[in-house]
Amino acid sequence: MSESNYNQQALLEMDARHRARLINSLSGFKSANLIGTIDKNGRSNLSIVSSVIHFGANPPLLGFVSRPHSVERHTLENIVETGCFTINSVDVDIALQSHQTSARYTKEESEFDKVDLAPYWIDSFPAPFVLESSIKIGLELVEHHLVKANDTVMVIGEVKHLSLPESAVMPDGYVDIESLDLIALSGLDSYHVTQRLQRLSYAKPNQMVFPLTLEGDVSSWPEFSKKRMKDR
Amino acid sequence: MSESNYNQQALLEMDARHRARLINSLSGFKSANLIGTIDKNGRSNLSIVSSVIHFGANPPLLGFVSRPHSVERHTLENIVETGCFTINSVDVDIALQSHQTSARYTKEESEFDKVDLAPYWIDSFPAPFVLESSIKIGLELVEHHLVKANDTVMVIGEVKHLSLPESAVMPDGYVDIESLDLIALSGLDSYHVTQRLQRLSYAKPNQMVFPLTLEGDVSSWPEFSKKRMKDR
Repeated sequence: MSESNYNQQALLEMDARHRARLINSLSGFKSANLIGTIDKNGRSNLSIVSSVIHFGANPPLLGFVSRPHSVERHTLENIVETGCFTINSVDVDIALQSHQTSARYTKEESEFDKVDLAPYWIDSFPAPFVLESSIKIGLELVEHHLVKANDTVMVIGEVKHLSLPESAVMPDGYVDIESLDLIALSGLDSYHVTQRLQRLSYAKPNQMVFPLTLEGDVSSWPEFSKKRMKDR
Repeated sequence: MSESNYNQQALLEMDARHRARLINSLSGFKSANLIGTIDKNGRSNLSIVSSVIHFGANPPLLGFVSRPHSVERHTLENIVETGCFTINSVDVDIALQSHQTSARYTKEESEFDKVDLAPYWIDSFPAPFVLESSIKIGLELVEHHLVKANDTVMVIGEVKHLSLPESAVMPDGYVDIESLDLIALSGLDSYHVTQRLQRLSYAKPNQMVFPLTLEGDVSSWPEFSKKRMKDR
């Protein structure tokens, strides 16, 4: 198999769009999520992002990258204004509409209307969720870090509310997101469904990892197991 | 479909391992990569991470989250010491070995030896690549940000070297990582292969997005197209 090699010079001299597609592909598969926000005048905003990542479970923290000079700045401005935002999952059924939210709509236009997704309000949480998303996460802003190298911003929030289908939560806590038909992204524009190979055991130095059942580490969930059996 | 709702209190009172599995599942599908580093004494380290994300294409920037109090701290220490690291893709063939690198080996033990992956050196780049990885990226540290909320560190590097199979690079720059059998992760331990649904066009406000060919936006690559045809 023939290999391409690029040094720094070759990367910098590349056509800008070609480079954008290439570099955006390098990190591997990405999550697809919709960030829901509202400004102080009550105008809502919805934006697909491929950079949501896990920062920690205790406290529960998720973050994403806000790009410079893009439509996502509405998202960032709203989050700084209101201190909160929502993260909503993207599945096969809403992939096209979700991608469409990346068009450069004006601040007066709500992507909810433009792409025909329904804003959904939960209790008194002040940012809009996406009705069609199976996983709905409400977060409060805890930190944002300016990346000086290119003026992007890493936004980090703490989970204050979570809704998801009960059937997707395995007894050990793992959420079977494949069963919810969630999408994986690659590059700037490629959408993928997935097929599980296996779940793997917690790695230890003197033992090779081994496959778990879909339900996870069965040794860790006696009480959940009993509950589940009873429920059936 | 029955929905589970969790408020902040419910999340904080949850069993710690159950919460870790649940929260780690929420961001959606994740990339799988191996971070290669070396310390000033020449001892190499290799660590699987699921948090590599794209920060920008110009300059080309990738980043990942280093967890607190974990084996990955060897990785962070080495990066700060030497100023560089590598990111290497994980495909189906090396998924088990890659997962095994997450075991808590001592600093004297090299994960390369322990999981039987081969360190690979390119030109004078001072950190080890993974021979078995189809995408090999060499980066210099540009910034790292401490996340005060949980003592994790966001590490950001600039791409200085890139190797990948030429056949996987589409004429418009998109890399067909699915053709390289790269793995997507979910939760802490689930490994998935993917199947492309479609690539979607660049979104514009007054036009619904539409599917592209696998090769991408054909209007954008006349010269690459000609070259490719000639090569065949």
